[in-house]
Amino acid sequence: MEPTKPLLLLSNDDGVTARGLNYLIETLAPLADLFVMAPDSPRSGAGCSLTSVNPVSYRVVRDEPGLTICSCSGTPVDCVKLALDQVMDRRPDLVIGGINHGSNASVNAHYSGTMGVVYEGAMKGYPAVAFSLCDHRHDADFTPLRPYLVDIMFKAIAIGLPRFTCLNVNFPLRPKFEGVRVCRMTYSSWDNEYVNCPHPHGGHYYWLTGDNTNLEPAAEDTDLWALDHGYVAITPTQVDVTAHGLIDTLKQAF
Amino acid sequence: MEPTKPLLLLSNDDGVTARGLNYLIETLAPLADLFVMAPDSPRSGAGCSLTSVNPVSYRVVRDEPGLTICSCSGTPVDCVKLALDQVMDRRPDLVIGGINHGSNASVNAHYSGTMGVVYEGAMKGYPAVAFSLCDHRHDADFTPLRPYLVDIMFKAIAIGLPRFTCLNVNFPLRPKFEGVRVCRMTYSSWDNEYVNCPHPHGGHYYWLTGDNTNLEPAAEDTDLWALDHGYVAITPTQVDVTAHGLIDTLKQAF
Repeated sequence: MEPTKPLLLLSNDDGVTARGLNYLIETLAPLADLFVMAPDSPRSGAGCSLTSVNPVSYRVVRDEPGLTICSCSGTPVDCVKLALDQVMDRRPDLVIGGINHGSNASVNAHYSGTMGVVYEGAMKGYPAVAFSLCDHRHDADFTPLRPYLVDIMFKAIAIGLPRFTCLNVNFPLRPKFEGVRVCRMTYSSWDNEYVNCPHPHGGHYYWLTGDNTNLEPAAEDTDLWALDHGYVAITPTQVDVTAHGLIDTLKQAF
Repeated sequence: MEPTKPLLLLSNDDGVTARGLNYLIETLAPLADLFVMAPDSPRSGAGCSLTSVNPVSYRVVRDEPGLTICSCSGTPVDCVKLALDQVMDRRPDLVIGGINHGSNASVNAHYSGTMGVVYEGAMKGYPAVAFSLCDHRHDADFTPLRPYLVDIMFKAIAIGLPRFTCLNVNFPLRPKFEGVRVCRMTYSSWDNEYVNCPHPHGGHYYWLTGDNTNLEPAAEDTDLWALDHGYVAITPTQVDVTAHGLIDTLKQAF
């Protein structure tokens, strides 16, 4: 009897038609069974948001042996919840978010729908990996990522991350990488975040933009340092956001 | 010369008309100058999501000495970003999210727009506190919270939390509290998350619901334990989501 291929649940925040997701599908389809549940339109900046005021729905857009693709009306988190709770008939070996068009390193992890995918996978007890390329362009070149995607996918399944943890993997915009570095999240700051545009009918509207400043540029153990020096940055990430170091101080105050 | 009152930036995810926010305004207005920028409609489950594909806008709905209220087209995070970057002419002493109608304890912190408010405040370098009452109802009774809101507000300003940290404060649904406990986030699991409804025109739609299971019910240092035992739960929370404990293991693997 042929060994069963691993089953991967894929989602993203750029939407079901995004090139990053489809490059991931193309790369991994020969190696694994794939179940894809991705938003029907771009959801950049969705973070861990979910849909509660309205219902969600999905439709199957492709269904063949070893590959099912669904388009969902909800957020990236909704996609993972719905796939696991209602749609998939076999438990995945790994949940993957991406490949995101744009960096999810440093504090961007909090705004990232790609990270929303893997947070949700981690909460449900599955190993989960987010892939992001530091290139926002629609036609970003994902080919340098191929061997890393495969290697990290197999290693994440083999290692089996502890529940409530996941990996945030970011690739620098380079034709070739210096290797891989396991990192911590960099502290950085977003400033000058809006462009103020006068509305033709009166009033103003504001487009999000911004400058990101690395607050610890010399710290060689951070994800931004790794990316700036040409490395693939793997940041192990956890669901527990408790500031454990503050507990004793606050017990004195409250 | 009269001492300047502290300035508080308030936002929420239930929207600018929500009773929880308006109870907070009513309680704190005699003690502080208030600048409110809140979503124009409910945004429950918004997490740290932000608006990037479209522009955002706001309008002033009330403006009097010591109290300005704005209604914003964006998410809770957008509200804080826009207020700080474009609208406020004085730096706040504290950023407050809430009072949320419903718990943001345990893993719910990740889905919470109220926590999105204070994460954003913390990233920008302001002390930030989220208040949530474990009662989803529109007409929830916030009066038992009053002395705690005032006390925690003044203490948070006096202590001055470190940058990239904030407080997640949850109140149990009780007429009177046993006191305050400084806690860590509880590991819990959401299961049975959807109700599947047949659509009258064919297909199905899914409403989010779910059962939350406390995975460590005996742990007396957790926020769910505190709430279950009638205490106000104060969970210090941080922006750094690195799983520091995994770094060495992963360096071996990658």
